[in-house]
Amino acid sequence: MKVLVPKKSLAETLARVERIVPSRSSNPGLSLLRIDVNDDGMELSGSNMDVDIRARFAADAPGRGSYAVVGHVFSQVVRALPADEVTLEFSEDDLQIRSGTYSTKLQLMSPASAPVLNFTTQHEGVLDAARFARALSAVKYAAAVADFQAVFRGVKLEMSDARTRAVATDGFRLAYYDLAESSGIEADIIVPARSVDELLRVLGDGEVKLALEPGQLSVEHGNYALNLKLMEAAFPDYERVIPKNFPVSITLDATYLSEAVARVALMADKTANNRVDLFIKDGELQITAEGSFGRSQEAISVMQEGTDSEIGLAYNSKYLVDALTPVAGDMRLSFSGSNSAPSVVTDLGDSSYLAMVVPLRTS
Amino acid sequence: MKVLVPKKSLAETLARVERIVPSRSSNPGLSLLRIDVNDDGMELSGSNMDVDIRARFAADAPGRGSYAVVGHVFSQVVRALPADEVTLEFSEDDLQIRSGTYSTKLQLMSPASAPVLNFTTQHEGVLDAARFARALSAVKYAAAVADFQAVFRGVKLEMSDARTRAVATDGFRLAYYDLAESSGIEADIIVPARSVDELLRVLGDGEVKLALEPGQLSVEHGNYALNLKLMEAAFPDYERVIPKNFPVSITLDATYLSEAVARVALMADKTANNRVDLFIKDGELQITAEGSFGRSQEAISVMQEGTDSEIGLAYNSKYLVDALTPVAGDMRLSFSGSNSAPSVVTDLGDSSYLAMVVPLRTS
Repeated sequence: MKVLVPKKSLAETLARVERIVPSRSSNPGLSLLRIDVNDDGMELSGSNMDVDIRARFAADAPGRGSYAVVGHVFSQVVRALPADEVTLEFSEDDLQIRSGTYSTKLQLMSPASAPVLNFTTQHEGVLDAARFARALSAVKYAAAVADFQAVFRGVKLEMSDARTRAVATDGFRLAYYDLAESSGIEADIIVPARSVDELLRVLGDGEVKLALEPGQLSVEHGNYALNLKLMEAAFPDYERVIPKNFPVSITLDATYLSEAVARVALMADKTANNRVDLFIKDGELQITAEGSFGRSQEAISVMQEGTDSEIGLAYNSKYLVDALTPVAGDMRLSFSGSNSAPSVVTDLGDSSYLAMVVPLRTS
Repeated sequence: MKVLVPKKSLAETLARVERIVPSRSSNPGLSLLRIDVNDDGMELSGSNMDVDIRARFAADAPGRGSYAVVGHVFSQVVRALPADEVTLEFSEDDLQIRSGTYSTKLQLMSPASAPVLNFTTQHEGVLDAARFARALSAVKYAAAVADFQAVFRGVKLEMSDARTRAVATDGFRLAYYDLAESSGIEADIIVPARSVDELLRVLGDGEVKLALEPGQLSVEHGNYALNLKLMEAAFPDYERVIPKNFPVSITLDATYLSEAVARVALMADKTANNRVDLFIKDGELQITAEGSFGRSQEAISVMQEGTDSEIGLAYNSKYLVDALTPVAGDMRLSFSGSNSAPSVVTDLGDSSYLAMVVPLRTS
């Protein structure tokens, strides 16, 4: 069977699917990419066990057929094709790829060796894709990366009839982002942060359809369908640790503060939590850091509010910078009274976002 | 002492010097950057034992002084400075760096702990910097990278009263580039390929001054002075292995050929020298490669010359691509008669360049 396809759509689709399909795996079936040809197009699908992906695109095909190729080899060849049009000719044993003066014969594998993937067509939920992406990308940084941190390595989705919240925490900081709309699904689920990364790569404009199935969230958006395996664990009861009363808070541009913290932190010792000290008094924020190479400081005028006239706290500078990054304009940083009670970042231009950072204990 | 300097010139100069000064070294003195303040400017200098570098730039300075700082820390701070102007205030023990609302106190080291570097002012040679850079960058790829390959890891400069030639070889391929002018120095020297990389980063327009000193080549160009330690070894007598007679040669665009070889080679086995086969007959070049995943081929019309009507040879595709990369337009690829005699690439638009590639032995 001979299929005609524009190089651009094949290469772009493949680039996204290729990210999921492992180029090396102890399970050789996982390195296979399944190709399904239908009358009106092609489907590429693969899996890394955590994420299944299927991508569709239009192609000039005379019939139907299912095949499998080694994913990373097929991707390499497609990227290098010299002409705008590609002819894919499937025979029993091999796939002949022709483009311009170039031609490759790639060994075909049995589609039965590739993982069996099922993508539902029954979606009970729907969200705006761009807003869903914003929620996920605003909180993702707060998830843990270390293997032993189990459930902290996930992003929790709280889907109720009133709102949809994405929340992540590693125990030292936390971020949530609320969408005021319900997806139509009511459930609390935890998606691994790495799978969230893959989902974010395919989310664009339009709507995203959701289905909750045993052990997985199925997502369909445009030409892409993904199954995201869920984490089975209890997420910490975080709401009770978010402080409500703040004797001091300051307001300033998030980017300005983030850059100042980052440059002062250059002198901080990496082995001592990248500690920076913040001291606020009389509408001035003083940021300082000290380490074996020297000492940095920066003084910034801020809008100061609250019942107390001054406060001093220490932070891991990286956590503070991360918490500020999702905010585009002005933000409020609010300090709890006691030494180690969490501080809270809110976005003055977007009340959906809240971040919490636990200060470093200073004796 | 207080020095005023634009952030831009400090940061740009430091970026080049920082590359040489090691951020970690078993000799802590090597990680130091020396700062010399003169009445009309500043000099930054450092060394990695193979390359000494000194960079000058204008600064508003009230006197003279010599200092040393840990190079990579100073560089990090300078990159992060928020304002266009920088004040450097040197005291006995520390350097206070101020820019906008930001300020850092960096520990100063004794300049006596930094390496003692001497940059000559007595240059007996001169070349056009851009043409010298072209010669070096055209041949550098042919130098070996493996530690045990000793002299093959250098670029030889043959400086006579008639011409200046840069040449590099790893035993499997060779490249030379001739400048028709003499530098004014007559000597054959070998510069380590890594040092050539550092030299290439500072060469721009204008002239480059050269001085040959015991064990090193001293180079001055614009605001930069470098000492390049030389390799003491006998370079192979390469001229006698460059073939003169070619029963078949082909002419075509170098980029077109290079891209075709690279995409055909995608199917080649990396463990078998990335072998591609070239077969020429009746004005057609057939490129093929075969490996465990499949087989690629490409047929290209070429201008064919010579006494023989056909020839077939195998190459390490990477070597062929490397040899073609310095050629911007049409090139001639000339084949010796016997199976393993070298093939030669010449640039039809620039006769200064010649590359030689030894074909793979095929039984």
